[in-house]
Amino acid sequence: MNHKVLITGANRGIGLALVREFLIRGDFVAAACRHPDKAEELSQLRPAHPDRLTIVRLDVNSDQSVLSVAGEVAERYDGLDVLVNNAGVFGGKPATLADIRVLDFRDTYETNVIGSFRMTRACLPILKRGRNARVVNVSSEAGMISRPLDDPKYYAYGASKAALNYVTRALAKDLRADGISVVALSPGWVRTDMGGPEAPLSSEESARGIVKVVHGLTLRDTGRWFHYDGSENEMW
Amino acid sequence: MNHKVLITGANRGIGLALVREFLIRGDFVAAACRHPDKAEELSQLRPAHPDRLTIVRLDVNSDQSVLSVAGEVAERYDGLDVLVNNAGVFGGKPATLADIRVLDFRDTYETNVIGSFRMTRACLPILKRGRNARVVNVSSEAGMISRPLDDPKYYAYGASKAALNYVTRALAKDLRADGISVVALSPGWVRTDMGGPEAPLSSEESARGIVKVVHGLTLRDTGRWFHYDGSENEMW
Repeated sequence: MNHKVLITGANRGIGLALVREFLIRGDFVAAACRHPDKAEELSQLRPAHPDRLTIVRLDVNSDQSVLSVAGEVAERYDGLDVLVNNAGVFGGKPATLADIRVLDFRDTYETNVIGSFRMTRACLPILKRGRNARVVNVSSEAGMISRPLDDPKYYAYGASKAALNYVTRALAKDLRADGISVVALSPGWVRTDMGGPEAPLSSEESARGIVKVVHGLTLRDTGRWFHYDGSENEMW
Repeated sequence: MNHKVLITGANRGIGLALVREFLIRGDFVAAACRHPDKAEELSQLRPAHPDRLTIVRLDVNSDQSVLSVAGEVAERYDGLDVLVNNAGVFGGKPATLADIRVLDFRDTYETNVIGSFRMTRACLPILKRGRNARVVNVSSEAGMISRPLDDPKYYAYGASKAALNYVTRALAKDLRADGISVVALSPGWVRTDMGGPEAPLSSEESARGIVKVVHGLTLRDTGRWFHYDGSENEMW
């Protein structure tokens, strides 16, 4: 069965790879990013999938933009089956504790946590009309409190992902009655602008795993934290 | 042995109770709050402890203020043995998911997470000169990801405390080499302005427990999460 999927941060990296993989699976994809006019790779997917790919302009840090996109998706799909909160920022790359900038704490929190929350809340009406509706928050093992990130000192990013995990759990609890699952998902360490060239995984490998996990999710999985390969992370 | 202690948010609630308990124990206390001129209960402790209680003006959301306080403490005590990051805000009290304000996410993060980080980093030079130096981040079971907060929906507060736990763990790792312990501490549910009149614990009971825990901390405890009664919280 084909899914109606909305992906944020879809212009590059894992977001773009997810668009491709969901399309390969036969799903309908609303690919959201801040600057569709600059999203060349994403736009190149359009001709091959004129009916199943829609590109929408979205800034997850704007209430108005988020509501507007939820409205567009409602008009096009009626119900939304899968929301992937993938849009995220890493913040600076401090070398030492002294280099960590307060600004990075704010920026990572604003997009990674508040942006995901805002997006999810705005999509609730359409998720409620989706089939086996699922919200996937792209998290990171860097946000694991029980095993904090190794050097260098990405406190801001890690703290934002820990907070996102909290929000994931809280939403899972609150949305269960509506039949909406909410999970955290770690894409692994991927060769993207964020992950860098040393990372072991290609974005395709990660996205293929994620799409498989997402297709298999049911309400029984709500509140859980999965890796891209389907294994579960049992520590927070 | 008497300790040199710096407590933030010392004008009321658990912070004020901690000032009293550390003084009872014979410690030297720098009690920091935003408006010392309005901190009547705190000021009333002065006459009985003219040599051991210092009241300082502090806004943990200001780089300048935090550095200034670290400087004052350096001048008075030379080394700091205990920093208690107690200053915190709860944010709004939403009744439903729809009532949660983005502003509350920002405010709770700014004070509870960034404020505690800023304060700790500014105090590192004096903590390094302290004896068995300890940083105590006042956390909350409301920030436990493995068991998210019950209704009503205090997402912003809970997410900020989860992030603070992450920062606690990261700092514990980074500061171990300097001999500085960093722990998270849950005060319990206390009858304060934040906790409300229904809470089972008085601020004195909570503070008495906390001071006992703090006096017993060593570097072996770094990165752990304690309750006010000394029991450990092993889940995050």
